[in-house]
Amino acid sequence: MKKTMKCELKEHERLDDLLVSGLKIIQNEREFCFSLDAVLLAHFVHVKKRAVGVDLGTGTGVMPLLLSQRAELIHAIELNSVTADLARRNVALNNLEKKIIVHEGDYCSIEKAYAPQFADFVIANPPYRPLRQGNINELDGVAKARHEITATLFDVVRAGAYCLKFGGRFAMVHLPERLGEIMVAMHEQRIEAKRLRFVQPKADRAPNMLLIEGVYGGALGGLRVDTPLIVHEPDGSYTKELLHYYYPK
Amino acid sequence: MKKTMKCELKEHERLDDLLVSGLKIIQNEREFCFSLDAVLLAHFVHVKKRAVGVDLGTGTGVMPLLLSQRAELIHAIELNSVTADLARRNVALNNLEKKIIVHEGDYCSIEKAYAPQFADFVIANPPYRPLRQGNINELDGVAKARHEITATLFDVVRAGAYCLKFGGRFAMVHLPERLGEIMVAMHEQRIEAKRLRFVQPKADRAPNMLLIEGVYGGALGGLRVDTPLIVHEPDGSYTKELLHYYYPK
Repeated sequence: MKKTMKCELKEHERLDDLLVSGLKIIQNEREFCFSLDAVLLAHFVHVKKRAVGVDLGTGTGVMPLLLSQRAELIHAIELNSVTADLARRNVALNNLEKKIIVHEGDYCSIEKAYAPQFADFVIANPPYRPLRQGNINELDGVAKARHEITATLFDVVRAGAYCLKFGGRFAMVHLPERLGEIMVAMHEQRIEAKRLRFVQPKADRAPNMLLIEGVYGGALGGLRVDTPLIVHEPDGSYTKELLHYYYPK
Repeated sequence: MKKTMKCELKEHERLDDLLVSGLKIIQNEREFCFSLDAVLLAHFVHVKKRAVGVDLGTGTGVMPLLLSQRAELIHAIELNSVTADLARRNVALNNLEKKIIVHEGDYCSIEKAYAPQFADFVIANPPYRPLRQGNINELDGVAKARHEITATLFDVVRAGAYCLKFGGRFAMVHLPERLGEIMVAMHEQRIEAKRLRFVQPKADRAPNMLLIEGVYGGALGGLRVDTPLIVHEPDGSYTKELLHYYYPK
């Protein structure tokens, strides 16, 4: 029996298909829209059955939606009220209110909203660039999603460490150029990197994204570096692996 | 005019061709013999004209030999007396006494032999595995070259930081699984990673080596991750890039 989806779109909004389990997502074209990064991270992170997770800076909720079939419960934290509203409506649109809790708030002061050490996993697709770098996007919400205006790399790792149970996993998508900072920040917060995968646009192009997973309270060492994920074939078409993320069958 | 090479081989020794600028190397089959790692690192490191360098744990001196055309002077430090003797004879065999100084000694106490901050670059192909891991090779010299018996990762990074001038470069070849430890140790010694390249046996195989270069006193961030170096084509032959290291013309 197919459920009918109720969906009212506001100005600048559009309805997209997530191509996974019939999930739909509303996005606002004037705010930050999800991209490949979020999809790759959702596929990269280890999620055990009945796991409780946190998404730090969930945006429109794309990662919790994609993980809703695997996790028991996901706390989706979002600072931007326009985007948090979209996330809430996306959860309702997909009838996932029992699985995803959208929390409008700032993960830099996460201790005000949550007790520590409750999560089995934490995911984050944080702003990539320090404030000093690049042109700031004139649309405020987009700027905050891309640049470290409201939170730094250190803030997101600290919030992750706060939420995680001992042995819990922290997974993040970020820029290769910031790997050194990421590893140092994780180590300082007792999260030790255990898996690393680079994403290359093509086989002969340098990586432009990285996926990293660490264990809270884990021992230093024993990192597994996977074969790079290649996005495009030489002719520009998507690789088999990438297509599999969108069309799993 | 071709020079005649005088070369007397002792028991268990063999003479190998380095295939670069007519260089030759004597190795002892019962000690650690140089491998691809050293060749790749020698090609990876940035060496400016008139640079003074240090090779921490030089073995038979293969990296200083390979870098002798680019650097002004290289201090080649080796603890194992059998191997240090080979390194000295290799330097003499190639008439490079003015370019390479072999120093028999322990880089864990480098401050006893050298004043600080004299080097433009430091290279190291250190033991890969912590003492607790893997089978210890029964030949003592080989075990010391492979396992952290005489020096840990921390020791080699500390010795490198001691030797380097401000802005000098530290380059190392190591195992991908130890990247987290490497980055933390470098950061703690004020060497910030600036270039990283993984080496994959084949395009579809996970990396089994990494090449990393950091700058002493550099700012955290701004790491460049290069396209992986692929060693073999799918049919098992060497890739063009790899062959170029051996036959540059």
